[in-house]
Amino acid sequence: MTANGQLFVVGVGPGHRDLVTPQAAAALRHAEVVIGYAGYFPWVQDLIQGKEWLALPLGQEKERAQAALEYARQGRQVALISSGDPGIYAMASLVLEMLASMAEDRRPEVVVLPGVSALNAAAALLGAPLGHDFAAMSLSDLLTPWETIEKRLRAAAGADFVLALFNPKSRRRDWQLDRAREILLDQRQGSTPVGIVRHATRPQQNIVLTTLADLDAAKVDMFSIVIVGNSSSRFVGNFIMTPRGYEISVDTGEAP
Amino acid sequence: MTANGQLFVVGVGPGHRDLVTPQAAAALRHAEVVIGYAGYFPWVQDLIQGKEWLALPLGQEKERAQAALEYARQGRQVALISSGDPGIYAMASLVLEMLASMAEDRRPEVVVLPGVSALNAAAALLGAPLGHDFAAMSLSDLLTPWETIEKRLRAAAGADFVLALFNPKSRRRDWQLDRAREILLDQRQGSTPVGIVRHATRPQQNIVLTTLADLDAAKVDMFSIVIVGNSSSRFVGNFIMTPRGYEISVDTGEAP
Repeated sequence: MTANGQLFVVGVGPGHRDLVTPQAAAALRHAEVVIGYAGYFPWVQDLIQGKEWLALPLGQEKERAQAALEYARQGRQVALISSGDPGIYAMASLVLEMLASMAEDRRPEVVVLPGVSALNAAAALLGAPLGHDFAAMSLSDLLTPWETIEKRLRAAAGADFVLALFNPKSRRRDWQLDRAREILLDQRQGSTPVGIVRHATRPQQNIVLTTLADLDAAKVDMFSIVIVGNSSSRFVGNFIMTPRGYEISVDTGEAP
Repeated sequence: MTANGQLFVVGVGPGHRDLVTPQAAAALRHAEVVIGYAGYFPWVQDLIQGKEWLALPLGQEKERAQAALEYARQGRQVALISSGDPGIYAMASLVLEMLASMAEDRRPEVVVLPGVSALNAAAALLGAPLGHDFAAMSLSDLLTPWETIEKRLRAAAGADFVLALFNPKSRRRDWQLDRAREILLDQRQGSTPVGIVRHATRPQQNIVLTTLADLDAAKVDMFSIVIVGNSSSRFVGNFIMTPRGYEISVDTGEAP
């Protein structure tokens, strides 16, 4: 009987070496096999250089997860690289979905290592747009019926959640963001602050501050996150700020 | 005229040195003045030892933000420490709210540095509960009317968002979590997986896997995050996994 190995699902942050946690760096250094296509992650090249690695292209997420589990099952120490945080629109759930389909005695140990997600990074670049309750949503209708997405947009807008929109657009999905904007405008002011962050923390980083009325899908692509404020959000200089509360109390006696 | 200084609002992660980003560590090393009460952040003591620092107790978040802005206005390099990510139920929005009240020519430069939030860390410890759209909410009604919180709970439950509940309970707020559970049970199965993570990544860390029907508020305190799955979430070994989609497509051609 071969001892099962370990699979670390490693969040390497949004795209800057200085946002790779020491924990993630140690896991990459420790790994015997690294999976994830090094070309996508130039900011961690120094950590994986010279390692056995398996590159599978975009679109082959299932194959990458499958390969990572299989190497680990064979007793290897494996790191599967995920950009951002593996738990937020990334690799962790796919790995566990596949793990569930393996016989229990064949399952390798899986450890998920958190990272700074594109959401955390985009929000920091914008100031404090997530200062209160927020909903994170993907506008991709490739794996989710569009009706479900519309329902969530309406629910989140109606309950005054700040919205963080992932996968707002791609070459093949070009109308979803405009439709989302219309839906949100039913329940939110046109003056609502909106921030578009492309390639957060990467060399190509680009930030656009706008409003819901003026939100222009031409400025958004598949590398963007779009954050839409709630009814209390406002601009402060070049920042978007959502207050942490509704000023019903003066002194809370609790951490904010 | 004194040149304005800089204020870095530094996210130092949930509670483990290995989750402090190199960027945050560099900002703490660079700072002349550190504000935040060192006793709360034992995992970054090595970075701030010997520095001028200002400790203000829990409950004095406004005073801390005010002091940080004032030092920076006087031309100092200031780091205001925030646990987790400063943008998620932490210090960034308070700082920008106060910045807004200063005359524009007196405002120091403010830079927000993202961190691994307790949400990222708790989700990783639970596996992949946030695998699809999710809503982050605070159950504290100290700064938000309870009616608003109930409305958000109903909206998020009805639209099948995974829910991440912050501030689920404190000594003075002991009924909110039970009430939230009742509200969620109106629209979500009793068998829905629930994870309670106390003191994520800290020495006192404690994880409880349960279901919405069995969620016991006695196991929850003010250091806990409670994550409630959506209608597709399930247990996989000792993990909670929310699939990334609804299986309406086989091959997406896009990153998950």
